[in-house]
Amino acid sequence: MKGWSEMLPTTKFAPLPPYAKKIDSGVTHPAGFLSAGVASGVKKCGKLDLGIVMSEAPSVSAATFTGNAAAAAPVRLTRETGDCAHLRAVVVNAGNANACTGKQGLADAARMRLLAANHLRLPVEQVAVASTGLIGVHLPMDKIEAGIGAAAGTMGAGASPAAAADDFALAIRTTDKHAKSGALEVRLPEGLVRLRFAAKGCGMISPDMATMLCFVTCDAAVTAEAWAELMHGAVAASFNRITVDGQESTNDTVLGFCNGASGVEPGAAGLARLGEVLQAALLSLAVSIVADGEGSTRTMRLTVTGARDGDEAECVARAVANSPLVKTAFYGRDPNWGRIMQAIGQALGRDGRHALPARIAYEDLVIVEHGQQAALDGVQQGRLTEVMHQPEIDLTVALNGPGAEAIVYFSDLTHDYVTLNAEYST
Amino acid sequence: MKGWSEMLPTTKFAPLPPYAKKIDSGVTHPAGFLSAGVASGVKKCGKLDLGIVMSEAPSVSAATFTGNAAAAAPVRLTRETGDCAHLRAVVVNAGNANACTGKQGLADAARMRLLAANHLRLPVEQVAVASTGLIGVHLPMDKIEAGIGAAAGTMGAGASPAAAADDFALAIRTTDKHAKSGALEVRLPEGLVRLRFAAKGCGMISPDMATMLCFVTCDAAVTAEAWAELMHGAVAASFNRITVDGQESTNDTVLGFCNGASGVEPGAAGLARLGEVLQAALLSLAVSIVADGEGSTRTMRLTVTGARDGDEAECVARAVANSPLVKTAFYGRDPNWGRIMQAIGQALGRDGRHALPARIAYEDLVIVEHGQQAALDGVQQGRLTEVMHQPEIDLTVALNGPGAEAIVYFSDLTHDYVTLNAEYST
Repeated sequence: MKGWSEMLPTTKFAPLPPYAKKIDSGVTHPAGFLSAGVASGVKKCGKLDLGIVMSEAPSVSAATFTGNAAAAAPVRLTRETGDCAHLRAVVVNAGNANACTGKQGLADAARMRLLAANHLRLPVEQVAVASTGLIGVHLPMDKIEAGIGAAAGTMGAGASPAAAADDFALAIRTTDKHAKSGALEVRLPEGLVRLRFAAKGCGMISPDMATMLCFVTCDAAVTAEAWAELMHGAVAASFNRITVDGQESTNDTVLGFCNGASGVEPGAAGLARLGEVLQAALLSLAVSIVADGEGSTRTMRLTVTGARDGDEAECVARAVANSPLVKTAFYGRDPNWGRIMQAIGQALGRDGRHALPARIAYEDLVIVEHGQQAALDGVQQGRLTEVMHQPEIDLTVALNGPGAEAIVYFSDLTHDYVTLNAEYST
Repeated sequence: MKGWSEMLPTTKFAPLPPYAKKIDSGVTHPAGFLSAGVASGVKKCGKLDLGIVMSEAPSVSAATFTGNAAAAAPVRLTRETGDCAHLRAVVVNAGNANACTGKQGLADAARMRLLAANHLRLPVEQVAVASTGLIGVHLPMDKIEAGIGAAAGTMGAGASPAAAADDFALAIRTTDKHAKSGALEVRLPEGLVRLRFAAKGCGMISPDMATMLCFVTCDAAVTAEAWAELMHGAVAASFNRITVDGQESTNDTVLGFCNGASGVEPGAAGLARLGEVLQAALLSLAVSIVADGEGSTRTMRLTVTGARDGDEAECVARAVANSPLVKTAFYGRDPNWGRIMQAIGQALGRDGRHALPARIAYEDLVIVEHGQQAALDGVQQGRLTEVMHQPEIDLTVALNGPGAEAIVYFSDLTHDYVTLNAEYST
């Protein structure tokens, strides 16, 4: 509606493969998808807050949801009663999470789905529901109902599908400062396909935890199984590798739709390329969520190597990435490796002494060798100061074990984080 | 040396049993213990930074150490080569943690112990070593050596043992704002015994994590087994129940000495009383560490009930107590139960839905009932605002399971925490 468009975010941690090209999301678009974004009034400020995406023809789909036991009503509804491999549409509202809302919440989510399905002429099990916003408050169903009607009414009418998809990307956000959407054109051996992404996450000046939502549309022709494999692999290497404050939302949802409208049917090599692009794109969105985390001023990639097994690598990486001491040190531009060692030691526990890190490096600078401070000359000290001021910093922790690895992306912990999360008052 | 004395801190969470009485730590003191605190120069500001406590006669002892794999050299030395049930003395320095210091660090800790043992004429295995301060820096052994000589030289000479014990309490601190020491007189059926406590912890304007140290002296006559049982029980219910930022130090140490110098030999009833008093005293010290946690403005006691087992109760309690969202909400005086529910849900995981809390209460106010917001009238809303402004707040989370419980004490997360931990620069 606004002629407004976004480019996929850029990060050194997720370079795009050469056969993928960023395209203007407001102009081109995966074929065969319709979108809408409207202001339903759930957000009091009158901003766009309700969106729908739909594939015009049958599509395959893949979904990943939060593992939180207090999963919100829309997550429970979609996960438990949706046909998650053959979804054709999703209806999303921002401003209210419909979480911790009991039976009424489930009924409201089901009504959102039914209304959208009726307007879109789809069976309910092919329509997903997602919500983000306040926890513990019932949805204002009169506004939601009118909003769904209005959104469905605009679909395919007036604005170009690409411009309408930009409205959808706006409508799913809460307090995100930076855009997290965009489109790609991918050159497969079999021909050109297009992907589009709309994500939100980690603006936490609303009273509750940030929710991460991401919706992907693609016009390649692939089977449900192949699409699920591509999506789950990409999510595992991107959204499941990030942390801002270690808090998993009740509403996290990643949904990918793939409708075949391009007519391009990738073989093994094409699927591999598509998977690689999907992973790079989701990682760039995931990193941009960390960079836009509440109060975040820098993003670290931590690689833990030499662990006994994947669980140990993961446990150590999360312990470092979620340590408030490590996070405040990065905020203070302080290369305080003692705090990293403390977090590693806590994760390994008393019997883990044998695995204590042989080496800690910040970018190319080894600052701990054999578990003790490495000697740095003047040039290296200068380089270390430079590194600590980078917006994106690469960290490596080499444990003293067989070799399992884990990677986590994390933000620093700042005064603004505390301000954003403390200054709200009910 | 200074005629300066301290009373054991007071908290509503740890009322003293009626047969225990706070006494002036600068005047009276458990019999048969000598102490010292001197300025060795490890702390550049010239403050007291090296202390010794010794029992004049053989004593029994009990020790608890950090579970961190990166345990500091003094912890490793004492734990692995000390006679931890029959320690008679401890030498402590503040300002340098002697952690992540490799073989040189172990040799330095062993030299500290040897020097103290020679001065005190004790076998080395009866002398414990503890350190707190900077990680990753070698001890300045010339200063430590002179300091141990000076401290040992003052013991039993000049100042009263009680006044010297106050110097010891000062010498073990780093950046604590409040005192964490004091003495008690306990009326047992068999007669009067005395206990003295010196603790430190959680001032984190030093560059590394806070270390929790606590030293207890007692002049009752009990066996090593009975004393260990009393001490371990009290530590489990106090120091092991607190969290400021979820970060376990490399140097945490609790040591208790019991020398029988009062001649009072408690029977079963006396031991029970002694254990009860010990637990209340250690809990008051533990809570005062939370209250003095970096930037802390209030202390919460969280009781989780109705868990499947102790592990689940513990996991849920820690998840809530360490959630930066929950902690910033308390800083903002915001009764944001959605964040508590989110943390519980994350701890329980996807299969834990059945256990989701039936009830959340802040003090006497039930704010969540059957997993949803409880209706509060105007009077209750006013009471809730009052509760949120208390310095100590009692929280209850009732899960929907069989009945296991866990209690954790935690602080809020504030701007000052970030300032204290970010503004240091190496």
